[in-house]
Amino acid sequence: MPSADPLTPERILEATEDVLRRYGPAKATVVDVARALGVSHGSVYRHFRTKSELREAVTARWLTRTEVALTEIINTSAESAPAKLQHWLAALFEAKRHKAGDDPELFATYIVLIGESTVVEAHIRELVGQLREIVEEGVRSGQFAVDDPAVAAQAVFDATARFHDPAYAAEWQNPSIGAEFIAVSELLLRGLRA
Amino acid sequence: MPSADPLTPERILEATEDVLRRYGPAKATVVDVARALGVSHGSVYRHFRTKSELREAVTARWLTRTEVALTEIINTSAESAPAKLQHWLAALFEAKRHKAGDDPELFATYIVLIGESTVVEAHIRELVGQLREIVEEGVRSGQFAVDDPAVAAQAVFDATARFHDPAYAAEWQNPSIGAEFIAVSELLLRGLRA
Repeated sequence: MPSADPLTPERILEATEDVLRRYGPAKATVVDVARALGVSHGSVYRHFRTKSELREAVTARWLTRTEVALTEIINTSAESAPAKLQHWLAALFEAKRHKAGDDPELFATYIVLIGESTVVEAHIRELVGQLREIVEEGVRSGQFAVDDPAVAAQAVFDATARFHDPAYAAEWQNPSIGAEFIAVSELLLRGLRA
Repeated sequence: MPSADPLTPERILEATEDVLRRYGPAKATVVDVARALGVSHGSVYRHFRTKSELREAVTARWLTRTEVALTEIINTSAESAPAKLQHWLAALFEAKRHKAGDDPELFATYIVLIGESTVVEAHIRELVGQLREIVEEGVRSGQFAVDDPAVAAQAVFDATARFHDPAYAAEWQNPSIGAEFIAVSELLLRGLRA
């Protein structure tokens, strides 16, 4: 729907997500996005120089939402490092599971976008970096005994792939998945403890 | 090539694997298998009643080869349970990595067959059952402290998915994968230890 609001990058990204959901990633064009906003496609290109730059930006925005929510666990919580780690892993699983379950079409769209994008590597680096902060905090407080926090963080991320990698999305509705998640995360926590 | 040897199930399965590799799972037929063996398709159907029964059998045979190799680690080794577990996980990773790397076409064929088959569930049950035996042995020897060996075995299997699930086959040639495998398996071993 055309609007008199100024054309911000955020408004373009919102419209792009909507157009991608409606037409699918194979068919959605910049002209569709411009039409949805009631502007010329030239106005969209002033903010995003190419179609692929626009798609990268919308994928990055989608991934960043999860990162921001997880950062809050690291920064605001008064929990111990082990509790924070448990909490962070559960929040990551929940976030991914919700994205997959609440709007399966949009999720499928983003899986296609992620496949053609390099932003997912930055996303994984960010998540492993957050895990490393928690591990380092636990080492400082004497609750974790770990030789190399970067290696341990990567190992925790790899070992929980079943609970955050979209390749497993089909299994996230299994009745046993919650118990399996708890078993893996508790085993990893025991492995980190001093 | 026609042969005068008696038509055993094993010979049919070998010929089927060969036909699947050559024609691909979408095109391979029972007639192709019979022709490769120099027999009528009726002779093949005497051993495997349907095309899908034949495909299930060839998939099961492929998966069973890995299971048998791993059983030997459990049965013949004089290692402690922790060493055995490390050894078993490394052997599973090696077996899968070899299957994927040595003959990528056959591997891709089996991924298709596995997708249409139920035998993979039995394969996973067998592997988790073997892990459970090792965990139980470690509990008996006092080296592992675990509430429920079945739950722990499933957790170890799930946490090492990156190193045995064919969904990750493309990453098994990464230079860092060996170090990542060691980091995950050592973390899990620490988590199991008494």
